Amino acid sequence: MPVYTTTLEFSTHGDSEIVDITERVQEEVSRTPLTNGLVTVFVPGSTGGVITLEHEPGLVRDLKEAFERLVPRDHPYHHDRAWRDGNGHSHVRASLVGPSLSVPLREGKLALGTWQQIAFVDFDNRSRRRVLIVQVMGD
Amino acid sequence: MPVYTTTLEFSTHGDSEIVDITERVQEEVSRTPLTNGLVTVFVPGSTGGVITLEHEPGLVRDLKEAFERLVPRDHPYHHDRAWRDGNGHSHVRASLVGPSLSVPLREGKLALGTWQQIAFVDFDNRSRRRVLIVQVMGD
Amino acid sequence: MPVYTTTLEFSTHGDSEIVDITERVQEEVSRTPLTNGLVTVFVPGSTGGVITLEHEPGLVRDLKEAFERLVPRDHPYHHDRAWRDGNGHSHVRASLVGPSLSVPLREGKLALGTWQQIAFVDFDNRSRRRVLIVQVMGD
Repeated sequence: MPVYTTTLEFSTHGDSEIVDITERVQEEVSRTPLTNGLVTVFVPGSTGGVITLEHEPGLVRDLKEAFERLVPRDHPYHHDRAWRDGNGHSHVRASLVGPSLSVPLREGKLALGTWQQIAFVDFDNRSRRRVLIVQVMGD
Repeated sequence: MPVYTTTLEFSTHGDSEIVDITERVQEEVSRTPLTNGLVTVFVPGSTGGVITLEHEPGLVRDLKEAFERLVPRDHPYHHDRAWRDGNGHSHVRASLVGPSLSVPLREGKLALGTWQQIAFVDFDNRSRRRVLIVQVMGD
Repeated sequence: MPVYTTTLEFSTHGDSEIVDITERVQEEVSRTPLTNGLVTVFVPGSTGGVITLEHEPGLVRDLKEAFERLVPRDHPYHHDRAWRDGNGHSHVRASLVGPSLSVPLREGKLALGTWQQIAFVDFDNRSRRRVLIVQVMGD
């Protein structure tokens, strides 16, 4: 069975930046000969997550504020006491949101809704170079 | 490799209604000749999610109340200020819960626990006709 | 298409115990002849979840405390009123975290980050014997 695995690379500013990667994922999928199957986007790291959202400026702010209310940056995390890198909140947020998203592929297209985009969320507290894995299985 | 993609259609009342779709997903799977593989249920939209739960009335209420405590409806969302549709909370809840669920298929059956059901959660603030994607891959 | 489905069995203490299962999942994967594809870890039950995290003692405590802040044990859950087993919080946490994780398999290895582990979280309020499903699809 055909399995195609590629990567997406880009830079982020961190601080729960929400990066719309829909077109880049679709481009990677379109490079494969597959037209039906499953597309998995995976973050190989413990301070990032993958979500879907309507990627418009209001909701991007709403989500960032929700992350801050639910898992505040200034809480005294045990991780920070031990490792002194100040990103305890990044790890907790990433574990709750999750590193993996699977989207059906239909007739060559990601089966997303009209106002639904795939986004990477960089929960870390600094700029980073990120590499995500995009895998396509099917026929 | 065989990939079967079908849809489920139904109406919901919104307001975090939690609809048990387990039997309907199993029926779609049973229509395919596949007996082992992966079943993915996907919401093509940005105000719904897919979860598993013990779908009994007490927990259904507990989950709806948890959504309201964690992401309150009456918060001043930026999305609502821009779009005036009053469903900022719906979008934020949907992004946190996620649109995709993958369940192993074993000997023709979804590998769920005895008291574990698959449910669609409609976070939108109005009645809607919903179409979910059910995809089965395997052999 | 080849599909391999196996199980992991172990005992837990409950109370949001976070069990690192990375090596055990990798061992199950390595027993199959597959080298590229998708690995799905699934909890067949409604009081457990699968996450990834940097599994170090500080973060393990941080996550357990986050679960308690977000979905407190001592809240009056409707489930508890009906069923008297005192694990309403376990169910709500499990539904929010989710029972399924999909990780790409590349050249025989789970495509995890260096400080990213797969963990089972037992949200139940008592010791249990747990059986997880590990499925590998690919080639």
